Formats: sequence, structure tokens, C-alpha cells
Amino acid sequence: MSQNIYSCEVEQQTIDFTGRASLTSLIRAVVGVAGKDAMRNGFGVRELNESGHTWVLLKLAMELDYRPELGMRYGVQTWIESVVRMFSTRNFVLRDEGGEVFGGAISEWCIIDTGSRRAADIGSITSKCGEFVVGEKIGIERPRRLRGSSEYSVTCHSVRYSDTDFNRHLNAMRYVDWMLDAVPLEEIEGSEGVRIDLNFISECYLGDDVEVRYSRDGSAFVFEIVKADGALSARGSFRF
Amino acid sequence: MSQNIYSCEVEQQTIDFTGRASLTSLIRAVVGVAGKDAMRNGFGVRELNESGHTWVLLKLAMELDYRPELGMRYGVQTWIESVVRMFSTRNFVLRDEGGEVFGGAISEWCIIDTGSRRAADIGSITSKCGEFVVGEKIGIERPRRLRGSSEYSVTCHSVRYSDTDFNRHLNAMRYVDWMLDAVPLEEIEGSEGVRIDLNFISECYLGDDVEVRYSRDGSAFVFEIVKADGALSARGSFRF
Repeated sequence: MSQNIYSCEVEQQTIDFTGRASLTSLIRAVVGVAGKDAMRNGFGVRELNESGHTWVLLKLAMELDYRPELGMRYGVQTWIESVVRMFSTRNFVLRDEGGEVFGGAISEWCIIDTGSRRAADIGSITSKCGEFVVGEKIGIERPRRLRGSSEYSVTCHSVRYSDTDFNRHLNAMRYVDWMLDAVPLEEIEGSEGVRIDLNFISECYLGDDVEVRYSRDGSAFVFEIVKADGALSARGSFRF
Repeated sequence: MSQNIYSCEVEQQTIDFTGRASLTSLIRAVVGVAGKDAMRNGFGVRELNESGHTWVLLKLAMELDYRPELGMRYGVQTWIESVVRMFSTRNFVLRDEGGEVFGGAISEWCIIDTGSRRAADIGSITSKCGEFVVGEKIGIERPRRLRGSSEYSVTCHSVRYSDTDFNRHLNAMRYVDWMLDAVPLEEIEGSEGVRIDLNFISECYLGDDVEVRYSRDGSAFVFEIVKADGALSARGSFRF
């Protein structure tokens, strides 16, 4: 069976002041499920590391009808929609305990050589990934290619140990944290449904100083994360 | 049965550059197990919230022989050692898949009124907690009462949305993150065993500016988190 369902639960440490799971924790849940599913099927980070490669998240789109409350159990079903040369698309459907869909996500990944940091042809690194392609799409729009804004406000961060992942890069979840920290609390409090788009463009390293630039585009909050040398690291959009 | 065992797994998002679970993630695991076990037995945060109360972590001691690697499954066994008036002690033992103990923790908690922020007699708020007292101790020293140092270095942080918990207070895990961010990476890389002591003294709120003061005391890294008004919020010690 190539469509796997993983059981999740909203724990106390993942809820915010609204009593519901934070958006960061829900993104962490789907990215975590991606890692587990790849590991279970033999093409996880550990296997890739053996040949000096790793998975990198390029883009994510997520839509939620609501954020689940403390103690709520939900299932995340995941499958690979496609593997085309250097890119793989993995989908997710989030269902409550009654089986009702309350969210979905589409993620785009590549495999890089951990030395050269260059993307590799996925099939040449692991043949197993291709065996699990299901092809099935889900009913949300693919991750958008986001644009910057010429007018924005700025907050600054330094990338420290606790912000980094196993590659010593800024953890994808911390990008989301830093973006959400710039959203007015009333928006987070009042929000029900949300559409999130994330584009990861270049990696930030331990010790980097970064600017979080944010602006509004109608009902969306739009972000750019820019390194001290001016290089664009990521873009994000949250439409409540 | 009042001694419960919870199954955990080291996920990709919890490991640091050493390939092992971060200390923050292991502390989060035991605190998460405390929350789950209380919820399962009818005296969790949700139940306490109904009468306007909540659990507050006061002190934690944790000892680890090593930090487990990516993919490793482990069990956290927990029980309440005592409930004495306003204080409850909860213990944890961490075992690998073969049942071998690799760590333990002792936590001290109180219940506060969410309005007055005052501690209440635990038995007067929930009778259930007392029913689960086992009395059994574990073989590590209780959480130490830590002292400050007169000579220290400082880093500064502002408490933002992503740093807070459901009470709009600085999340206990973020205290640990901010402390560890001041530890030289070589110490984290080379460390095998560790003894951690945490004292939580007064709460930090969303919007607070805090200083993280750190110094060395022999092989230990010692921390104080101090608010802008000079009030001491927490102390920590990590002995590698």
C-alpha cells in the first residue's frame, strides 16, 4: 500500500493562545509525516545520507478549514504524486476522527548532494522513490511562485543553534515562526480558514543575520526572508 | 495501572547537526508525556481550565547517558511521586527499545488560578491527581535550587508569538533554546551524558524583552533569564 495514513494528536505544547494548534505545528506535522513515510519506504534522509545526499523542501502549499483544538486526533494521509527528474511532489490530506477532510497540502522536494549542494536526478539516487508514485492529485492549488513587495516593514533575526536543523541550516519551521511573529495577533485570533504558500529559495546557515520583510496584499500577509548579503532565502504568504 | 509508559520516536525535525535528538526536544518529550498522562487520568490542563486553573512547571532535573539518534524509538515511563499541598512531583524514566534505561527526570509542578496567578492547594482543585500518587523515587538527584553568578555574558531576546504557549507566556522549551544557543557548539558536539537543572521563577509575557545571562561554573553552563524590569524569570544549568 503506497497511500499511508499517519495518526497525529494536538498536544499541549503545540497550541497557541487560541487553544488551537499553531500553524507552525501543523506544517511540522505534515513535513514530519513526509520524513516518516520516506523512511518507512526506504528513501528517507538516513538512507540518502549514506550516499552523501539529502531531501530539501522547495515549496509548500497548505489549506486548512480550521486549526484543530487541544487533544484532537487527526490523520494525515500522504502519497507521492510525481517524480520528474529532479523534482518530487508529495500530497497530504488531513482528516478528523470522523474521516471528514479539514485540510490538505502539496509539497515539492528535491534531492541534493550534501557536498556540492546541487540538485540530483532523483531516480539516479534512489530507485525506490519512483516505486511509490501514485499520481493522484488533491483539490487545492499547487504551491504558488511568490513575488516580493517593494514596500515592507522589517524585523531582524540571527540564526542560532536552536533555529537550525541537522544540516546546520535554518529550520523550515523557524521561517514560518518568524513570518507569523509579524502577523497582528487579532488576525491569528480571528482566523478560521487559511491558505499558506512557502517558497524556499536558498539556505540560511548558523550565524547568518536575516531580515524578515513583510507587507500586506489584500487579505494576505506576504513575507521575504533576506540574508545580510542581500540573497533571497524564502518567501511566504498567509491568506486568512 | 498508575505507571504509564508512552512511546516516543526521534523524528527528523528534532535532531541537531550531531544527528541526535536535541536536548530541547527531549525535555519537550517528557513535558509532553506529563501533559498526556494527566489528561488521560482526568486532571489535564483542559479539565483544570474548566475551573479557571492550569498546571505550571516549577523545576525540572534531567539526566541523560546519551542523546538518542534519528529513528530511535524509546519509552517514557511516568508516575506521580507525591502531591503535598501546593506541590506535585512527577518522575520519568527513559528506556531504549531493549528496555535499557538511558535517562531520567524529576519535575515539580503547581496548579495556579489563571486569574490571580496564585498557587492553589492541589487536592482542593482536583481530587484525581492524588489518586495516582505512587511514591516511588528514581535514582537521580532532585532538581537543584540554582544560584546566579555575578559575572556573566548577555544575549537579548524579545518574546514573540512563536515563543509563547497557550497562556501567552514564554514557552518552557524556548527558555531551554535560548540557554543552549549560548553554549559553544563544540560542547554540544562532544557531549555524551548531561545533567540539566531548570528553575522557573516568574513568567515572561508576550512582548517582554529579556536578557539571557550565562557563565561557566566548572564543567557546567549556568544561565539566568532576567526581564527588562530586573525580575528573575528562570535559572538553568547544563553540566556536560
